[in-house]
Amino acid sequence: MNAENIRMKIRTGEHSGPTSGISGDKVQANLAILPKEYAFDFLLFALRNSKPVPIIEVLEAGEFTSRYAQNSDIRTDVPLYNIYKKGKLTNTVSDIKDEWRDDFVTFLIGCSFTFEQAILDAGINIKHIDEGRNVAMYKTNIETVPAGIFSGETVVSMRPFKKELIDKVINITNDFPNMHGGPVHVGNPQEIGIENIDSPDYGDSIAIAEDEVPVFWACGVTPQNAVLKARPEILISHAPGHMFITDINNEEYKN
Amino acid sequence: MNAENIRMKIRTGEHSGPTSGISGDKVQANLAILPKEYAFDFLLFALRNSKPVPIIEVLEAGEFTSRYAQNSDIRTDVPLYNIYKKGKLTNTVSDIKDEWRDDFVTFLIGCSFTFEQAILDAGINIKHIDEGRNVAMYKTNIETVPAGIFSGETVVSMRPFKKELIDKVINITNDFPNMHGGPVHVGNPQEIGIENIDSPDYGDSIAIAEDEVPVFWACGVTPQNAVLKARPEILISHAPGHMFITDINNEEYKN
Repeated sequence: MNAENIRMKIRTGEHSGPTSGISGDKVQANLAILPKEYAFDFLLFALRNSKPVPIIEVLEAGEFTSRYAQNSDIRTDVPLYNIYKKGKLTNTVSDIKDEWRDDFVTFLIGCSFTFEQAILDAGINIKHIDEGRNVAMYKTNIETVPAGIFSGETVVSMRPFKKELIDKVINITNDFPNMHGGPVHVGNPQEIGIENIDSPDYGDSIAIAEDEVPVFWACGVTPQNAVLKARPEILISHAPGHMFITDINNEEYKN
Repeated sequence: MNAENIRMKIRTGEHSGPTSGISGDKVQANLAILPKEYAFDFLLFALRNSKPVPIIEVLEAGEFTSRYAQNSDIRTDVPLYNIYKKGKLTNTVSDIKDEWRDDFVTFLIGCSFTFEQAILDAGINIKHIDEGRNVAMYKTNIETVPAGIFSGETVVSMRPFKKELIDKVINITNDFPNMHGGPVHVGNPQEIGIENIDSPDYGDSIAIAEDEVPVFWACGVTPQNAVLKARPEILISHAPGHMFITDINNEEYKN
């Protein structure tokens, strides 16, 4: 099934769940929609923190069709949206046509699904996927570079791998510099300010076996965290795991 | 002499002329200052047209010290500034302290001096430099990707080289993808809409010998052209050839 067909099924409500694994080799994107008055600060925040905030596309104010997704409609083609007002989640909805405004600027941001697919393609298992769980995510003591009203700590996702696979996993993800790239940390969680690895700030906890090492990547939750901290009038994002599917192949982001 | 000392001489008026050749291996930057209301559109224009508009740095609204130039002051450390109001040049001044506003956003944009230095370092002469003239620049029929209020044709700079040097020159400049990169066109000027190669739109005309081929690079005049076309309330830029000198080494932009 091609990406446009999947978007159509999402639009009509035929598919309403998470998007993990449903788009084959197509890039899935994090979504952030903000009024134009915040758009410069957010774009600058993204440029200054390109590892956690890899920009795929920025739409003009009021635009809702992605250049990288034929016949798409940003207002309907994500299975589930979170609406935040002044930093608080106020509503979770399946389309945002009623909320849409001409001054809304849409940002599509890269997601770890792209490099995860490359890891899987190399024949390496990823534990949380095998267990059907969400990836574990943590706030760290790694500060982002502030821009305008936006600032805050880097959020990371963690995947445990056996020691002998670490170098290979690092190399694979280094090949996607514009999709979070290589890990920001390998090993002891406390070195990046994570006190309790069994208690992630977002997503699901995952056990780390004796012969495994935790590997940490910059995560697309970072910008959402920074935006909510700034308490803008409104932010609309995808609900976790419910991404926007583009027509771009993952390989196009491979260096 | 280090870059900070040169900036100090410019600030005090001891150096007031063009900056070509005075900063050794330090990156020189094009300057564009706009009120914040235009900043998102301009930054998006830069991202969508990174070949003619390679962003080195964006300062916060009201900020006038570059992170990449110790103790710098954007308001005084350029030898000559052009002030444009509603798209018309109204004033050329040696500092902009009186014009400065808290909502001014400064963009530092890459300049061809960086790749020119690499060409010279490879032992290849550049004709307009040998003749002590400004590079020839032309409007083309290569459209930029519009963003918000900004649009327009790509402006290119032209340097003639002997046929046997073309491949080498292309390779050298390809190595600076974030400083205009490789040429956008080699050969027949009419193919990119230049009717009269002897009559550049900006800079000085340069003769092309029988055994030479004109080579065209995307040029930093492109964004200035796009901004003036949009007639914003105010734009402040460097006067041609009078650049902002950073502490960054040219090699740091080499791939």
